[in-house]
Amino acid sequence: MAPKRTERAPLPPDGDPKHAARATRSAGRRMRSLLLDGASRLFKARGLAGTSISDIAAAADAFPSQITYYFRTKEALFVEAACRDMLYVARSAEQAALRAETPRDYTCALVEAVTSTDSVAFFAEALTLTRRRADLAPLVERTIERLHAEGLRAYAGQIERHGWNTLRDPDATSRRFWALAIGVMVEGYAMGRSAEELAYEMLRVLGDQATTNAGARLRLVGGDTTSEGEMQS
Amino acid sequence: MAPKRTERAPLPPDGDPKHAARATRSAGRRMRSLLLDGASRLFKARGLAGTSISDIAAAADAFPSQITYYFRTKEALFVEAACRDMLYVARSAEQAALRAETPRDYTCALVEAVTSTDSVAFFAEALTLTRRRADLAPLVERTIERLHAEGLRAYAGQIERHGWNTLRDPDATSRRFWALAIGVMVEGYAMGRSAEELAYEMLRVLGDQATTNAGARLRLVGGDTTSEGEMQS
Repeated sequence: MAPKRTERAPLPPDGDPKHAARATRSAGRRMRSLLLDGASRLFKARGLAGTSISDIAAAADAFPSQITYYFRTKEALFVEAACRDMLYVARSAEQAALRAETPRDYTCALVEAVTSTDSVAFFAEALTLTRRRADLAPLVERTIERLHAEGLRAYAGQIERHGWNTLRDPDATSRRFWALAIGVMVEGYAMGRSAEELAYEMLRVLGDQATTNAGARLRLVGGDTTSEGEMQS
Repeated sequence: MAPKRTERAPLPPDGDPKHAARATRSAGRRMRSLLLDGASRLFKARGLAGTSISDIAAAADAFPSQITYYFRTKEALFVEAACRDMLYVARSAEQAALRAETPRDYTCALVEAVTSTDSVAFFAEALTLTRRRADLAPLVERTIERLHAEGLRAYAGQIERHGWNTLRDPDATSRRFWALAIGVMVEGYAMGRSAEELAYEMLRVLGDQATTNAGARLRLVGGDTTSEGEMQS
């Protein structure tokens, strides 16, 4: 069952056992990553039912036994590929949003990055699958926790860097963003919406997340209402 | 293929063809409804893959051929049962929210009604299925349109009746509510969250939807920011 073909190739000629172990580990990581890449591409195009283990093995130039060795089942591979994709899209959204100079641009950059790929819909499919597969839940939980923790960190950093006023608790802001992204994508994909329509719908339901200091004038009037006040920037 | 067993029973003894046609139609509707009830219960408990056409037929005391007669495929029955459940839960949420006297109570009543059943998660599963089954998309589209139209009507009515101030465009408010409900439920079901945890998370990300008139004092200060201003009630 061990993926011999790929583990053997990178063995160093001197036979040093430490080098050999390290080379085996890194070859293993490479093969895992290749399998995840192929799986992600195929699952997104054809869904879980439309993709077989041998399709994925062929796409990664591997043996089907390597998939069962690294991931055990097709469902576990589906969930892991979807979780990885979701964290990638979150990171690329944050990168894109770093260049924003206003809260509105920041929200637009996030929304555009998220709606221009099908990674969120893929992740939502994995979430749906996990509902009936409690054994796959821990990875999904860790992914969601990481998504929220990294989202919070990125948002709080952006707020501080620009001196913006967040319209609600930054943690709730980040959680709300991802819950809305999932909801809008699940709904929109079922309705066959285009990336532009998805982005429009997401901006529409998301509303403002923060204001510039120019908006702060207003907040001062409200006294104890400031912490959750929301207005146009 | 016709569901003879149930169509024959309610035929009137006088044999009037109009009566007979009407009785046949109403028996057909009754059988359809029974099949949807049984399907909804089984699909929610066991998922699409874990439920067979003969399980559903047995639950509704019907023949498997009656399911293919009325719904053609198991997937079509799944989507129709989920769409019906979603409209039911929306209606019962609206009914529960009618008794609310403050915007905060209104939001809580909606959230509690939505998180206390698994109908939203069932609907989200149907949405995910529809992504790969374009033939089932029209029913899902009609359901989402109706959900948004009825949500808008109920929310606008509530706002007007109490003289509350909505914090953003009522249409966006209603769409946002359902997108968040879907996102929070998909995420929460994958993580095995309880109904209380789902309600807590939903209230947290939803924030305020409207304010009482006591909050309006603040809005007047904002000038052109009033239409989307948000603050505590």
